[in-house]
Amino acid sequence: MSEITLKQYLSNQKNTIDKFLISELPKVRGLLDKLIETMRYSVIIGGKRLRPILSLIFTEIYGNVNESAIRAASAVELLHTYSLVHDDLPAMDNDDYRRGELTVHKKYGEAMAILCGDALLTLSFNWLSHQDIKPETSIKLIRILSDASGYSGMVGGQYIDMYPDEMPFETKEEGLLNIHKLKTAKLFSAACEMGATIAEAPEKDIMHAKNFGLELGLSFQMIDDILDVISTKEELGKSIGKDKEQDKLTFVTLYGLDKAKVMAGESIQKAINMVKDLPHPYLVKLCEDMANRTS
Amino acid sequence: MSEITLKQYLSNQKNTIDKFLISELPKVRGLLDKLIETMRYSVIIGGKRLRPILSLIFTEIYGNVNESAIRAASAVELLHTYSLVHDDLPAMDNDDYRRGELTVHKKYGEAMAILCGDALLTLSFNWLSHQDIKPETSIKLIRILSDASGYSGMVGGQYIDMYPDEMPFETKEEGLLNIHKLKTAKLFSAACEMGATIAEAPEKDIMHAKNFGLELGLSFQMIDDILDVISTKEELGKSIGKDKEQDKLTFVTLYGLDKAKVMAGESIQKAINMVKDLPHPYLVKLCEDMANRTS
Repeated sequence: MSEITLKQYLSNQKNTIDKFLISELPKVRGLLDKLIETMRYSVIIGGKRLRPILSLIFTEIYGNVNESAIRAASAVELLHTYSLVHDDLPAMDNDDYRRGELTVHKKYGEAMAILCGDALLTLSFNWLSHQDIKPETSIKLIRILSDASGYSGMVGGQYIDMYPDEMPFETKEEGLLNIHKLKTAKLFSAACEMGATIAEAPEKDIMHAKNFGLELGLSFQMIDDILDVISTKEELGKSIGKDKEQDKLTFVTLYGLDKAKVMAGESIQKAINMVKDLPHPYLVKLCEDMANRTS
Repeated sequence: MSEITLKQYLSNQKNTIDKFLISELPKVRGLLDKLIETMRYSVIIGGKRLRPILSLIFTEIYGNVNESAIRAASAVELLHTYSLVHDDLPAMDNDDYRRGELTVHKKYGEAMAILCGDALLTLSFNWLSHQDIKPETSIKLIRILSDASGYSGMVGGQYIDMYPDEMPFETKEEGLLNIHKLKTAKLFSAACEMGATIAEAPEKDIMHAKNFGLELGLSFQMIDDILDVISTKEELGKSIGKDKEQDKLTFVTLYGLDKAKVMAGESIQKAINMVKDLPHPYLVKLCEDMANRTS
């Protein structure tokens, strides 16, 4: 495994996830066609599959990747996709492009985008309750993912992001860290924790995976804030400059571009230090690569 | 138990559910306040709690109602509430009133309504994965509820209802039955099936509960169609006459009011026949009561 490049490794992992998604998502076959087409469109149009890949990596570290591990990782991607579909809605971030393609509501209409997101979210928990996965493990995965993505996680983060004036934090710095932790980092954290959980890693290692995911997720969001300023629409595949336009609180608007870059570098380094001794040939490389991403 | 009236029985059961919801829903305590307020508003403003009550009834038939049974039944109500919040959105059915109160988006805004629904849906599965419930049972409940409420269930039904021209059915009659089955009856069915499952009823009894719930849910939706025409806004607590206004396919628009009433009566009778021999003092009465409901 260590003889291929990081790029090849990521491509293989992405293929594994994509193959599963394409085969396991409901298929257009005469009933509910447009809804299913919309679900497939939203999931299949792209994405780096970073969250499910992190999940698979932690399964590789502590065990073997089998069908259950791939299913669980793919469920994280379904959940991530639903959040993008709903976040892009006119009442939310109002984005027209995502991954270089029209957003779901631009292509299929607003009602369809709402329903598509609802269906993906529900399907995510449906997949996690699949009989392939041991009941005890399955329940743990559902608990981890629902904790990370509900009101006290991703949805809560999106809420504070939408209504910054409602923030109870004393400083903007503290508020921003909380937005990013809830909105982005908790799902990264859940992905890593789920990967270790499905491999039945010792509890302390599962907690370590969880903590690492949180730090990596924070770095990811810092870099996202930076890319919104320095990248191009072509490279990023979505509208850029929206944070400033929508007067969003981001690492760049709060600290300025230079300081944000330094902070992102420090956060990535912290994440790397947490996993540099783990037996995986690509995890540290993936972190380094993320620090240098342009899309 | 058999000495109290049906009304008293339903009131007791509703209190049990309401008490659980009020105590277990997240509380406003300085973080995420408005989101949590919105979630509590949407759930607590009312409703007859019919779905969770059906769930408790089937637990009573085959076992004892404990904290787990109440939690599972309440999770069904969370899921039902999310569906109302999203269905009321301007891009969907565009309703201003629900249960006599302003709908969530009218009171808190559209973004908040989307997030509130997402949070309730996620919380529903979170509650079902609670450690109080045995893992094997928990997984079954999650599978039942996610099957009934996702693309091939409630969300799918809402989709066909929104886009009737996409229906693949040869006749309108067949299409209508499918809309109502998916949109309404499957969740009733899941509620009954979950109640029997948590009581660890024999498989054939669980299937019977499921089939009964489907029939009862169909009757419920037929009556809903009728009430949209013959009831008043005050009695129903929501806008009336909307089906005709929005040119919806309903039992009344398709068959006319008189025939729709006859069909609803026949459907309720069919449901009653399915449970008249079950050892529960209120289930048949509840069905009869439903046939005569005015709200």
